[in-house]
Amino acid sequence: MDIVEFFQRSSGKWFSQRTSHALAFEQAKGGQSELQIELLPQTDPAVIKLCEQYKLDPTLALCGLRVNWDGTTEGEKAKQVGNTVLVPIADPDSPNEGTLLRTLGPGEKVLLAGRYSVGSDETLTLTAESETMYSEERLWFANPNLRFRTSVLKQSGGFSTASFCSEIRKGVTSPPPATTQSIADKKA
Amino acid sequence: MDIVEFFQRSSGKWFSQRTSHALAFEQAKGGQSELQIELLPQTDPAVIKLCEQYKLDPTLALCGLRVNWDGTTEGEKAKQVGNTVLVPIADPDSPNEGTLLRTLGPGEKVLLAGRYSVGSDETLTLTAESETMYSEERLWFANPNLRFRTSVLKQSGGFSTASFCSEIRKGVTSPPPATTQSIADKKA
Repeated sequence: MDIVEFFQRSSGKWFSQRTSHALAFEQAKGGQSELQIELLPQTDPAVIKLCEQYKLDPTLALCGLRVNWDGTTEGEKAKQVGNTVLVPIADPDSPNEGTLLRTLGPGEKVLLAGRYSVGSDETLTLTAESETMYSEERLWFANPNLRFRTSVLKQSGGFSTASFCSEIRKGVTSPPPATTQSIADKKA
Repeated sequence: MDIVEFFQRSSGKWFSQRTSHALAFEQAKGGQSELQIELLPQTDPAVIKLCEQYKLDPTLALCGLRVNWDGTTEGEKAKQVGNTVLVPIADPDSPNEGTLLRTLGPGEKVLLAGRYSVGSDETLTLTAESETMYSEERLWFANPNLRFRTSVLKQSGGFSTASFCSEIRKGVTSPPPATTQSIADKKA
């Protein structure tokens, strides 16, 4: 499986159940989100614009992914609503890893390119790093309609937060076609 | 990293913070455990005994791992206390995967051999399957003192429960030596 197929399988509407562990305090906090994920072609204006912001040739983009979320966190009144566009650009010599462009998140002021890699176990790993933080996100499918996602955030003082999301596809009408199958898919 | 090194890195005492997601009901439940994990040599009586129970030659065992746990689950009065011994036996032609022997768990009556594999991203995946269930567990290290673990259980009706554990090494005095480093280790 390559990242375009991973993104293709991710497209659709999802219900995401999230738990965050504050590692230093042995505390857990829940949350829920609705995700709407859309695969964008290389020629989509949002893909081209993001490449240009990073001063990269848009023809290098493999595709784009637009992610919209609308969610709540236990104990917080304000909803979390937002969206981002991701664009993968493969390394010339290793098609399963490369650079991941991302639109600015809330409160962010500097564009930060991350890295992606698709492992032999069909897990997609996304990393991002700045002077003050390091984040690592892992995503994989248990079956075409059940996706898992973990993320861990390291700030200057050490690893601070780990989170886990169970994501269930909503209103399955036409799951995206799959050209390869993972072990878990075969069990599904 | 091979499975013996993974088990070696896992040895010691850990505090494990667990959240389980009941997938059909959008419910989460917390829990905590203390883990004590011990690497056993191929010649340990517990390793030899387990191989004999499975009618396998004990010299095929790569090592053994004894895991003791003592924990609680939110909303349940009874503590969960138990232990298990795991023994990996590599496939002849692929050193990074093989059969995983396991002692009988509470309430289990039939020995069930699972499978293990260590992926290119240094994630250890354990699977087990019977006529009525399929389980998949993934374990990886964010750094030598922080381990993550997810598990998903599928029963006859479909995927039922997913859980996530953040595991922090307790009382670090001498973390086990590592011969290779993951990306995350390098950031640690």
